[in-house]
Amino acid sequence: MSRRRRLYEGKAKVLYEGPEPGTLIQHFKDDATAGNGAKHEVIDGKGVLNNRISEFIFTHLNDLGIPTHFIKRLNMREQLIREVEIIPLEVVVRNVAAGSICTRLGLESGTRLPRSIIEFYYKEDKLNDPIVAEEHITAFGWANPQELDDIMSMAVRINDFLCGMFMAAGIQLVDFKIEMGRLYEEDTMRIVLADEISPDSCRLWDVKTQNKLDKDRFRQDLGGLVDAYREVAQRLGILSEADNALATGPRLVQ
Amino acid sequence: MSRRRRLYEGKAKVLYEGPEPGTLIQHFKDDATAGNGAKHEVIDGKGVLNNRISEFIFTHLNDLGIPTHFIKRLNMREQLIREVEIIPLEVVVRNVAAGSICTRLGLESGTRLPRSIIEFYYKEDKLNDPIVAEEHITAFGWANPQELDDIMSMAVRINDFLCGMFMAAGIQLVDFKIEMGRLYEEDTMRIVLADEISPDSCRLWDVKTQNKLDKDRFRQDLGGLVDAYREVAQRLGILSEADNALATGPRLVQ
Repeated sequence: MSRRRRLYEGKAKVLYEGPEPGTLIQHFKDDATAGNGAKHEVIDGKGVLNNRISEFIFTHLNDLGIPTHFIKRLNMREQLIREVEIIPLEVVVRNVAAGSICTRLGLESGTRLPRSIIEFYYKEDKLNDPIVAEEHITAFGWANPQELDDIMSMAVRINDFLCGMFMAAGIQLVDFKIEMGRLYEEDTMRIVLADEISPDSCRLWDVKTQNKLDKDRFRQDLGGLVDAYREVAQRLGILSEADNALATGPRLVQ
Repeated sequence: MSRRRRLYEGKAKVLYEGPEPGTLIQHFKDDATAGNGAKHEVIDGKGVLNNRISEFIFTHLNDLGIPTHFIKRLNMREQLIREVEIIPLEVVVRNVAAGSICTRLGLESGTRLPRSIIEFYYKEDKLNDPIVAEEHITAFGWANPQELDDIMSMAVRINDFLCGMFMAAGIQLVDFKIEMGRLYEEDTMRIVLADEISPDSCRLWDVKTQNKLDKDRFRQDLGGLVDAYREVAQRLGILSEADNALATGPRLVQ
């Protein structure tokens, strides 16, 4: 494979130039980080699982008419995606209190929220991604009011779909983080879901045991992260092929 | 004067039962606190000045058709107010970056914001009054969407009035904090401005010298707090009587 231009390297993914204008290749690394990079580890096989889980979810969202940047999976660690202009917000949807909202608002972890809550965090590592309100977003022009409306409607739809999907797999969707981008096509622009949806970006609790099947296993040093991610993939019925692949190691571009 | 029932004591004010049902007496203390009470001092004369400045502002807002809890000033330190159900939010309107928004969003103090920004903080001392978004406010029922709309429109109007008033006095209104309450009258409820507006709750910078004429003098140990507050009152033309009173000491109920 010819040398590709690397456009961006984040904590858990790399973006390369794609084969055609307007496309990119999203590569899933095995790196796990927490606390804005304060904690870092390489966890064998995480990237492969997240690539598969995110592919599965984005494909279904596309089918449902919720537009995403996802085109197709290319290999074990890579997806072909549409190039978008990322909106500098982390959009968090919470169904149950866990993580930062507990300390911020004095809630006990595991409390069901009165209704799902959408939060916005300004994506800026050096400020530790501070929570912001719509007022800040529109005043600083990170997104305009129409875009914010679109983002919130999409976030609600995505939450509805994911809640149903995970519930059927015996998993409670506690919360998740998504990122959105502006997709420019000819003279039009529309907001699409970008980045990934995986156990790296969700809190997923086993309905029966309350076991954590997500990145909190890493944040809280619980161990068994890859086993938990594989469990999620298996319950979603997407692991037969990847399982073999995991057992035999990467076959394609690693 | 007969013994009055004390209903609430805050950091800088006390609320007593009023002479008639539905009324309260708001008493301004000389106590100054910062950092959620971590720093505390008694500053002679502050309460008297805030009582006068707040009376002046609330009277004008009432005249302008912006409803407030204020009925009339009773004496040096006390006002007669309507009893309201306080909404547990601190509503902050910012015109220029100063204080917490600078560290939170990485702005330089003194930067004019792209437009005025309204922020909400959940009033809960033991959580250090965390910043919240409309989503949290409506999800937890601290205010409903209609009330939030009313609060935001009133906040904008109050900011417009105060900017004009202070500008004419050679003072830049950097930001201010207000509280709102629900006023129940017969079968109706409406949102009214409550609490106070004074140099305790505003950031006020002299237009020419950039000198601080507000509680930051206390927070930042700059000294001269009462002189600064008196300067504000004098420039607003409300000090002739109070000035005498300050010189001769409290005459009425202290």
